[in-house]
Amino acid sequence: MSANQEKSGLDLHPHERLDRLIPQKLDIIQSTEAFTFSIDALLLANFAKIRMKKRQVIVDFCSGNGVIPLLLSAKTEAPIQGLEIQADLADMARRSVVHNHLQQQIKILTADIKDAKRYFSKDSVDVITCNPPYFKRYDESRLNPNDRKAIARHEILMTQEDIFKQAKYILRGKGKLYMVHRPERLSELIVLGHRYQLTLKRLQFVYPKFGQPAKTILLEFMKNGQEKGLVIQPPFYTQTESDDYSEEAKKIIYGDEE
Amino acid sequence: MSANQEKSGLDLHPHERLDRLIPQKLDIIQSTEAFTFSIDALLLANFAKIRMKKRQVIVDFCSGNGVIPLLLSAKTEAPIQGLEIQADLADMARRSVVHNHLQQQIKILTADIKDAKRYFSKDSVDVITCNPPYFKRYDESRLNPNDRKAIARHEILMTQEDIFKQAKYILRGKGKLYMVHRPERLSELIVLGHRYQLTLKRLQFVYPKFGQPAKTILLEFMKNGQEKGLVIQPPFYTQTESDDYSEEAKKIIYGDEE
Repeated sequence: MSANQEKSGLDLHPHERLDRLIPQKLDIIQSTEAFTFSIDALLLANFAKIRMKKRQVIVDFCSGNGVIPLLLSAKTEAPIQGLEIQADLADMARRSVVHNHLQQQIKILTADIKDAKRYFSKDSVDVITCNPPYFKRYDESRLNPNDRKAIARHEILMTQEDIFKQAKYILRGKGKLYMVHRPERLSELIVLGHRYQLTLKRLQFVYPKFGQPAKTILLEFMKNGQEKGLVIQPPFYTQTESDDYSEEAKKIIYGDEE
Repeated sequence: MSANQEKSGLDLHPHERLDRLIPQKLDIIQSTEAFTFSIDALLLANFAKIRMKKRQVIVDFCSGNGVIPLLLSAKTEAPIQGLEIQADLADMARRSVVHNHLQQQIKILTADIKDAKRYFSKDSVDVITCNPPYFKRYDESRLNPNDRKAIARHEILMTQEDIFKQAKYILRGKGKLYMVHRPERLSELIVLGHRYQLTLKRLQFVYPKFGQPAKTILLEFMKNGQEKGLVIQPPFYTQTESDDYSEEAKKIIYGDEE
């Protein structure tokens, strides 16, 4: 994730920089003012089971600067469509897609996920990924509804329920919704998912280091999945006792070669 | 947990033996034919936050041979009441209570937990513990409904919903229900708990060893608790890479001295 602003011919706007997705050998435009991805995006793309085959429909909700579609493009030949409501972020994502010559595989729609059913037919999507706003609107007082970072972090323009509602409609039976979220909202996510026939099938907790409470959860929901059979994966530790990245974190940040 | 059948004056029935709860310095009657506790009971008693104070009401559902009340008696001065539907197990538990001279603190009722509201007033109980049958009735074909071990393992005489229903009635507001269960039923437990105003507030996963999926979950529900604020505790590993008990497992089995 080291900065590289010397890339020639690239139209970088003020506050933007070009970072490297090392294992995927891709570049991504980030903006310190609007959106930079976190390790959660890497964790989600790593957690999602995506098949290589071309004939499937993959949709990314709340795409931000397109980090998830870019990461997933290294795992599959299938087309990936990202929905991002903020026009400047969607534009940033599209410029990254062009820069990486991935226009044939990745489409970024400037779209509200609440309108997903306008863009995708009922029961047509195989996989949805989503790195949503983690916090409820009321979790922080006096949010500025025009603040681009606040929109990415807080449920200002959409709620968790909107994600499940749309996912229920556009996912095919047994289709998957992969999500990254905060542990304190696990119960709510399970109860809400259940209401929209999205059953939690796989769950992984991400701990900063040994002996500390989990900070992040990775969830795999299946549409019309049976309740029985939830798998709790081994924990993922992002750091070692000495505050370095763990081996498993290094693998998703730097790839196998490092 | 080593056997000791030489204890004088104790009325041991066929197939029974006397085991030691080492950290608690208590003895417990077990029966290889009817009921022997597992490490899950030790994990649950360790996980439950029980205050020392005398004036509180603690109830153990599905008490079996009384292992949870015996373990909890070392953590509190409060009276503990265990409900066990199988008369021979309730009798075994009572004999252990007498053997340890704990009749003043522990009462074992031969009772169906579905009748809990007959024994305890509405909103009167501070803490419920429960190591319930883990499996649904249909999870194993041709169960013998008279098999004592099957009753302890499968939802033959009660269901998970009965536990939540009774807990909702007898627990006071903010009262706690501590439970040990299987990870594959986590979603269902959260959805059911929510239906009975029992909110998951703390969760711990127990892994056999590093890198393997979780086998056991420990849950703390709070009556009328707010949805936000679930804490995922650090994982508990029962074994080391070399198949020995882990340090944390040794602590709950052998105590601090060993």
